[in-house]
Amino acid sequence: MGAPYRLGRTPIVITRQDIIDAALRLIGPHRSVSTLSLREVTREAGIAPNSFYRHFRDVDELAVALIDMAGQSLRQIIRDARLQVSSTQEVTRPSVMVFMAQLASDAKLLHVLLCEGTVGSDAFKQAVERELQYFEDELCTDLVRLADQRGQRVHAPELAAKAITRLVFALGGTAIDASPQEREAIADQMVTMVRMIIFGAQAMAVANPEQLRQTGAAGR
Amino acid sequence: MGAPYRLGRTPIVITRQDIIDAALRLIGPHRSVSTLSLREVTREAGIAPNSFYRHFRDVDELAVALIDMAGQSLRQIIRDARLQVSSTQEVTRPSVMVFMAQLASDAKLLHVLLCEGTVGSDAFKQAVERELQYFEDELCTDLVRLADQRGQRVHAPELAAKAITRLVFALGGTAIDASPQEREAIADQMVTMVRMIIFGAQAMAVANPEQLRQTGAAGR
Repeated sequence: MGAPYRLGRTPIVITRQDIIDAALRLIGPHRSVSTLSLREVTREAGIAPNSFYRHFRDVDELAVALIDMAGQSLRQIIRDARLQVSSTQEVTRPSVMVFMAQLASDAKLLHVLLCEGTVGSDAFKQAVERELQYFEDELCTDLVRLADQRGQRVHAPELAAKAITRLVFALGGTAIDASPQEREAIADQMVTMVRMIIFGAQAMAVANPEQLRQTGAAGR
Repeated sequence: MGAPYRLGRTPIVITRQDIIDAALRLIGPHRSVSTLSLREVTREAGIAPNSFYRHFRDVDELAVALIDMAGQSLRQIIRDARLQVSSTQEVTRPSVMVFMAQLASDAKLLHVLLCEGTVGSDAFKQAVERELQYFEDELCTDLVRLADQRGQRVHAPELAAKAITRLVFALGGTAIDASPQEREAIADQMVTMVRMIIFGAQAMAVANPEQLRQTGAAGR
């Protein structure tokens, strides 16, 4: 319902964060940032357009800022989760669980990442693509590092990282509206699928040509 | 640009397909079916609302019909592609190529499937989910059948099928606006990722507990 107590008087300071918070209140599972209007955001924030322009050139710049924030925040959360896992423990389940917990929480920032990749302007799609790419780079480094620690190799680690990231985000998009029970089932499925990819990438690295041919994984 | 030649006189017959065609002209990579209005669709089809209601209860019913059509049409295309592949040949690349060719073509129906899963109403998301599920069921049957022919087993084939379907659709969504060169690169990546999943599911089916533990794929 906006910040009506502000109407009729000038707020003392309007920060960039106030505007971002107003935008976050407006968006949701059925509301893409690409449909936000300047008028709506300023009304929700209880400010005049001039105050908006002090922080953002236009609504599109606000939307891209939201996407960037969403990516940074999620990367930090996953990174923290991994740091708490010792090197001998399995990291897939804790990482997936943190992702799903974030999805179940207020998590509007995460919704932005999950939804804006398929609709919205090219600028939004590119912003999401960039954030996913950062994600994949960190995951790729992790996959290689963990395999090294175990004396194993990974086939095309950058593609394994991309497959895992895209799959988890795609399934995450379908889990936004899910019940806690459904989310738990989706999380279990995610863990198995992610392990399938890691297992496949490691098995392909040591497979002989005959094994690759047998599974149809060889050649073009 | 609609069908202006129809304005001012009653078209002889307005079919369900005419309305669907009008809707398809209106949607695109940046335009979700969830944003279509009755007014827009009837104007584009050059008909009065009454003619619309003879075929669809409301715009939402039209949107769900588009999603169902999209799923059916794509399943048929992929099925045809697989039938042309002999049992000794590899099916991943031909299937991925047909999917990408469809994406590169007019393919607005495919865009509907790729986009409506993450935005739009619950009814649209459920319709997309249903179509993807049909897809996964067929793919699961195929994975088991092909492995059987080679005397191999597949771990959790329904999850391997789901992982492949969700991944290909997620990457397809990012390939809609891509150039032919970029699409070719994405197709190559898709083929490797799909093989990774198949290889992983087959390797997990025969792995001993120690191997599963080593790759972090065991336990919960």
